[in-house]
This record gives sequence, structure tokens and C-alpha cells, in this order.
Amino acid sequence: MRDILDQLFEVLEQRRTAEPADSYVSALHHKGLNKILEKVGEEATETLLAAKDAEAGGEAERKALVAETADLWFHSLVMLSHLGLDHQDVLDELARRFGISGHEEKAARSK
Amino acid sequence: MRDILDQLFEVLEQRRTAEPADSYVSALHHKGLNKILEKVGEEATETLLAAKDAEAGGEAERKALVAETADLWFHSLVMLSHLGLDHQDVLDELARRFGISGHEEKAARSK
Amino acid sequence: MRDILDQLFEVLEQRRTAEPADSYVSALHHKGLNKILEKVGEEATETLLAAKDAEAGGEAERKALVAETADLWFHSLVMLSHLGLDHQDVLDELARRFGISGHEEKAARSK
Amino acid sequence: MRDILDQLFEVLEQRRTAEPADSYVSALHHKGLNKILEKVGEEATETLLAAKDAEAGGEAERKALVAETADLWFHSLVMLSHLGLDHQDVLDELARRFGISGHEEKAARSK
Repeated sequence: MRDILDQLFEVLEQRRTAEPADSYVSALHHKGLNKILEKVGEEATETLLAAKDAEAGGEAERKALVAETADLWFHSLVMLSHLGLDHQDVLDELARRFGISGHEEKAARSK
Repeated sequence: MRDILDQLFEVLEQRRTAEPADSYVSALHHKGLNKILEKVGEEATETLLAAKDAEAGGEAERKALVAETADLWFHSLVMLSHLGLDHQDVLDELARRFGISGHEEKAARSK
Repeated sequence: MRDILDQLFEVLEQRRTAEPADSYVSALHHKGLNKILEKVGEEATETLLAAKDAEAGGEAERKALVAETADLWFHSLVMLSHLGLDHQDVLDELARRFGISGHEEKAARSK
Repeated sequence: MRDILDQLFEVLEQRRTAEPADSYVSALHHKGLNKILEKVGEEATETLLAAKDAEAGGEAERKALVAETADLWFHSLVMLSHLGLDHQDVLDELARRFGISGHEEKAARSK
């Protein structure tokens, strides 16, 4: 049983090798790191604006914030992949900081 | 068996109710949404700069990028929590977009 | 004799009232503050990336940084205009902080 | 007669060579480009948040937006200076795009 980020990262890696015309992810990798980082910065901005609107707004604004945060996480996963890193590196770092079991828990779960 | 983001979010929720002087997370919530969003924006910037340095750099620069991305994800989790949302909302959105099993898989795993 | 920012701001104000189909500035105002701020955030990101490339690069990279900074300043002028403020408010604030003559110098020059 | 940005840039250049302990500008240059760009990104974020608050707010929120925009322009001037560029390069680019007289007007004014 694997979690959503594991599955998503696997999808991202598969799409990376697709034809750029057929895959947004592949096209991003072909355009290079700057284009990927422009998207990370753009989605960070849109997340901030959506959060301000969600604070004052209702259910539609909260859904929009979830969608923008998903865009931000998604593009940061593409960035990691582009540089030979992955989500597990980041999750392990978070686990280490907060005294949460990381790799070991992962290893246990995959049995 | 719960994954790292589940455990981390639980830690964040526990710390939210601590004394602000005792907890960075609690202090952030007390300062309010703008302060949390300033940190999200700040960590997004540092992630971009770290990614540029990682592209040209070695292992130290790659570790720094992992640490900055962890900061970005961490502060976006605090943002979600501040507005009554959580990581599972974002993961479900990503799962839905990519045709990955989300809630159902989650439910199955928790058995 | 008026300086470039004065002239530019006058152009921006004239274009604000044009048909949105005929003017990028007018179209931005019609789309509203969030769209203007998305552009400010986007251009800030592109400025950071261009600065990193300029540090390691040559004349082409330096020209690109000037162009991105111009985009950033331009969209921040549109933002000010959208909210009933202008460049002179910002220049006066900078003048005040640095002990530079602002309004008075301006008044003297316009004679 | 020189305008505010000219005077401000002259001040920034003078402070660049001061002792880092005595001058914020000098300290920024000594810390290097990444630190300067972190500030540009941070002030861009704070400008976005201040603009959202100014839209819904009153005079205090508008003054805060002017202050944040001044911070953003100030740090982008330090960035330009760090890379051997200046505000006139950016103003000339804006003048060129909008058909405003740039260098020539400048030359005329300095007589």
C-alpha cells in the first residue's frame, strides 16, 4: 500500500519521459529549471492571494485555496524530480525535525 | 500505520494550542494569517534560490534545497491549519487530478 | 521638464480608461486586483531568477535582468494606480527615509 | 536638479563602501546576492499582502502599502547596484517601451 505522494511521484516520473507535446510535465522538464521555478513562484503567489480570499470568504474560496496549494506542491515535486530529488527526501527532513519516524516507518509499511 | 504528513499535521495541531512562548507554531497562529503567509512567501523565495544553487552545485546545495522545500511545505501546512483545512484536502485534490485513489486508499490503509 | 516615472504614470492613467481589448493596462484593471498582484508576484520571481543568471552570466543576462526589473516596477505602478496611489507616494517615502528632498524638490522643479 | 531615484542611488553607492556594522546597505552587499534577493522576495510578498489589505482597508492600510512598495523598490535598487546596474537602466527600458524620452531627456535636464 503506497500513499498519494508516492503514487503521484511515480506518475510524474513516467510522464517525464513522454513526448513534450503529450505531457505538461514532460514539457516543463524540456523547458528547463527556470520555467519550472517560474511556475513554483507563480503558484506560491496565487496561494498567498487565495489564502487572503479564503480568510474573508466562504466554501468556494476555501476550495480555491486547496487547488492553489495543490498546484504549489505539484510544481515543487516537479522541481525536486528535475534535480534528482524526491518527496521522500523532504518528508524525511520533516520527520527528522519533528521526531517522527520516517524511513523506518516507510520501510515497515512496505513490507 | 500513518504516514509522515498525517503525523506531522497531528503535531502541528497539538502545538497550536501550546503557549506561544513555548512553540513556534503557536506563536505563528497568534500573530495571524499575514505573518504565516509572509513565511510561506519567504520560504518560496528561498526554495527558488536554493534550486538555482543546487543546479550548479553539489551535495551541500542539494541538501539545502531539501531543507528549504521542507520549510515551504511546513509553513503551507500551518497556513492550511490556520484556515481549518489540512494536508489531506490537498492530497485528495492531487489524487483526483491524477486519477490516484485518495480517500478510499486512505480508508483501506487505516484498517 | 518631467522625469520618466511621471511620464510613464501619465501614460498608464490614460490607458486605464481605454477599451480593455485595446490596452494591456486597461485589461489588467478590468480583471481586478488579484490579476494585477499575480503579475507583480510573477515578475518578482522572474527578477530573482534573472538576477541569479546575471551573476554568473554576461551582457545578455544583464539585459534580461533589466527587462525583468522593468516588468516588476511597471506592474507595481499598475497596482498603485489601481488602489488610487502613485509612484510619487513611494518616492516621497523613500526620500523621507533617506533624508532626500522629495515634495519640495518636486515643487521647485516644476516651476 | 536631480530626481529622487538619482539621489537615492547616490546614497546607496556611498553606503556600499561603509563599514558593514555601520550600514544596512553595506551589510547586505557583504552578505551577497542571495541575501539581497531573499529581501526582494520577502518585500514582494509583503507588498502583495499589503495590497490585499489596502483594497479592503482605510488610510493606515494604504500607507502600509506605500511603505512596502518602497521596501520592494529599495531592495531592487540594491540588487541592481550589486550587479553593476542602476535605476537608469530600468527607467530607460521603461521609456523605450512606452515611447517616452529617456536618456535624451535626462541629458537635456542635466544641462
